[in-house]
Amino acid sequence: LKLSDQKAFFAENYSLNMDDYLQLDYIFETVADPHLAAAQLCQEMSTIQWHRLGVDEDFRPRFGAKVLSLTTEKIPHSSSSYLQAMLKHDASDIHRCQVTIAYPYHNFGTRIPNLLTIAAGEGAFHAPDIITIRWTDIHFPQSFLSAFQGPQFGISGLRELMDIHGRPIIFGVIKPNIGLTPEAAANIAFEAWCGGLDVAIDDEQMSDADWSPLAKRAEALTNARKRAEDKTGERKMYLANITDEVDQILPLHDIAMQNGANAVMLNVMTVGISAVRMLRKHAAVPIMSHFDLFGTMTQVPYHGIQEKVFSKLQRLAGVDALIYPGLSPRMKTTEEDVHATVDTGLAEMGTIKEMLPIPGGSQWAGSLETLYQAFGHADFGVIPGRAVFDHPMGPRGGAASMRQGWEAIQRGIPIKQYAQQHRELREAIQYQQK
Amino acid sequence: LKLSDQKAFFAENYSLNMDDYLQLDYIFETVADPHLAAAQLCQEMSTIQWHRLGVDEDFRPRFGAKVLSLTTEKIPHSSSSYLQAMLKHDASDIHRCQVTIAYPYHNFGTRIPNLLTIAAGEGAFHAPDIITIRWTDIHFPQSFLSAFQGPQFGISGLRELMDIHGRPIIFGVIKPNIGLTPEAAANIAFEAWCGGLDVAIDDEQMSDADWSPLAKRAEALTNARKRAEDKTGERKMYLANITDEVDQILPLHDIAMQNGANAVMLNVMTVGISAVRMLRKHAAVPIMSHFDLFGTMTQVPYHGIQEKVFSKLQRLAGVDALIYPGLSPRMKTTEEDVHATVDTGLAEMGTIKEMLPIPGGSQWAGSLETLYQAFGHADFGVIPGRAVFDHPMGPRGGAASMRQGWEAIQRGIPIKQYAQQHRELREAIQYQQK
Repeated sequence: LKLSDQKAFFAENYSLNMDDYLQLDYIFETVADPHLAAAQLCQEMSTIQWHRLGVDEDFRPRFGAKVLSLTTEKIPHSSSSYLQAMLKHDASDIHRCQVTIAYPYHNFGTRIPNLLTIAAGEGAFHAPDIITIRWTDIHFPQSFLSAFQGPQFGISGLRELMDIHGRPIIFGVIKPNIGLTPEAAANIAFEAWCGGLDVAIDDEQMSDADWSPLAKRAEALTNARKRAEDKTGERKMYLANITDEVDQILPLHDIAMQNGANAVMLNVMTVGISAVRMLRKHAAVPIMSHFDLFGTMTQVPYHGIQEKVFSKLQRLAGVDALIYPGLSPRMKTTEEDVHATVDTGLAEMGTIKEMLPIPGGSQWAGSLETLYQAFGHADFGVIPGRAVFDHPMGPRGGAASMRQGWEAIQRGIPIKQYAQQHRELREAIQYQQK
Repeated sequence: LKLSDQKAFFAENYSLNMDDYLQLDYIFETVADPHLAAAQLCQEMSTIQWHRLGVDEDFRPRFGAKVLSLTTEKIPHSSSSYLQAMLKHDASDIHRCQVTIAYPYHNFGTRIPNLLTIAAGEGAFHAPDIITIRWTDIHFPQSFLSAFQGPQFGISGLRELMDIHGRPIIFGVIKPNIGLTPEAAANIAFEAWCGGLDVAIDDEQMSDADWSPLAKRAEALTNARKRAEDKTGERKMYLANITDEVDQILPLHDIAMQNGANAVMLNVMTVGISAVRMLRKHAAVPIMSHFDLFGTMTQVPYHGIQEKVFSKLQRLAGVDALIYPGLSPRMKTTEEDVHATVDTGLAEMGTIKEMLPIPGGSQWAGSLETLYQAFGHADFGVIPGRAVFDHPMGPRGGAASMRQGWEAIQRGIPIKQYAQQHRELREAIQYQQK
């Protein structure tokens, strides 16, 4: 790419109407001149060849991606010696770059798959001279946002639906996760609901399996839910995992509804973010998302896609409550990323409602304090599995330990002290120490 | 996980009917005992809690994933110092492990999203004590395969449709990729077809954009295709990219068909592999796949998912022709991976037809020899973009250079020598040297 051609991929040569542009942030490493590498990146993501042979035209002003800002630092060696070797670059002169790109979204419209194509497709991840690249953030203009419905309920809608105010919503993943009959699952969910659980959810591995067909499972869980509601006087929720082949999602939603489920879940990336958007148009209940497959893209810090990019896209598409990797070493995520997703869910986004963050990964009663202190507010969900369903006193005791964990916080009493008067919490602490 | 509990995640404790099991291969790194780490991996991917409290039951025999084989070697340091630090492991004792796992697929049935959930979801990518993990291969039992349609045409069907035998099929990505009116795109495709191009395809960035609505584009390209067929006496193909929100894929397919397109493309991972399976049931024309988004999962050698896993899943789902990262440094893939996808497309797979491999990335006339020599046969597609549409003699000359490149191979003449009598090929060589 000649120097004169590079310049057309920098924004200072245009006065941009930013309402026509997405802002995409990346970090990348290169041994080429950073300006050349950034220009090539923009070229590959947009107008790879911007004119026909012999025709006096230039598609870059209207269709070209443009560098808004570029900062670089020299680093002693690439973060990926493997890719560096593959690209046969000399290690002596490596630049780590941060770039913000203005992308004219009318190139493809307001379509999520096509956005993923340009932002994380061949153009970005196979651009010449770029050793490693990570898509770190995205910002939307108002005109783009207005094409999206966002969450149907959002945080306040979920709170109203459940009549839960001023505290985290307690989700519990039914365990054993695989192998229970619908009746057995309903029985332990009933126990947990009676102990204080708000939402009983199918594990992400659950499906419309022949050993637990969704229709029967939803029916059994719904009967148990209604009994628990009668018994406790509280509103309860059964959340059905309807992850399946994409053309089965709406039919499964309908089966879940006909049998009384009052929320649905998708393992979003396994069916595509677009499937949420499809479901959002169809569903009358909250939509929850699980993070399967995202780890293959998010866990390497110099490569792939940052968690919050997905969080933003899922909120746009219509996710009411987002399960994502939380504050636990095995979740292989940073505290910063966990906070970023909370912020992403709560940030002002035009008329788009707020999305409830549910940091996942071996949560228990003690997690409530960690999360509450980390976030500084109670607008989150907590999602134990074994801590409820493998609790030494059973699911009822496990769920009670969660409520007690919150009571301790509200009263300003350390949980170990509060546990002295509350056996469920005491046993929960002991279970964690095993 | 106690030693006695670990044992139930190893296959030697069962006699398995392998027709009920998928075989999943991984490489992973751990500082824990490799047997413990492998058992925990199986646990997290299947029966996270295999019995109810106080109930004498064990779901592991039927529902548990089981280690079939495990080999380990000590390595001086983890491939990911970042993840190692996050998991707070001592670097002194790191094992790199290869594991083959038998997975009872009746846990979820023959559903691709649910397969991705267990094989690349929270279980696999957030298993305790595992620093890095990469899903490297998958093998299907016959009972699983029989649920899938596979390619409708396959290689022999494509050859018959196009009446092209004994040589690679020449695809050309219309460039400029973004910004052309339908008529302008049709004009240059006509030129390329007349020069010898077989298939003119929309760029992966093309969509049903307002500046080039698919209906008008397909109509213009189809008129040009028919004129080119009349002129050359050859069969030609226009392949429409119908990547869009997932509920728009079938409607866009229909629009493409009504306007004469004779093949369709999806940027598969942006819409989910499941979308191919949906389209396969509906489409009467070949389905082609582009590799956008896969790079975020495949490029780091110790992490994510190996290319051939996706190739196999796409063949099952019904892809007739697969564009994937080819033999070019910027494609950030290994020669071994490029070959593995060719083998994957051609391997015997019950009644499932063969899938045409199309290694992508800045291909030109000279690539034909590289690919032919590498593969040892002509059952592949070659996919130039600029080499056809930015050829100094125009798209007609660019396409002619591709045919000449193949003629040289057939006659056993080095292309530089053959180029002496063939100006299009000569100029193609010079273009590459710019």
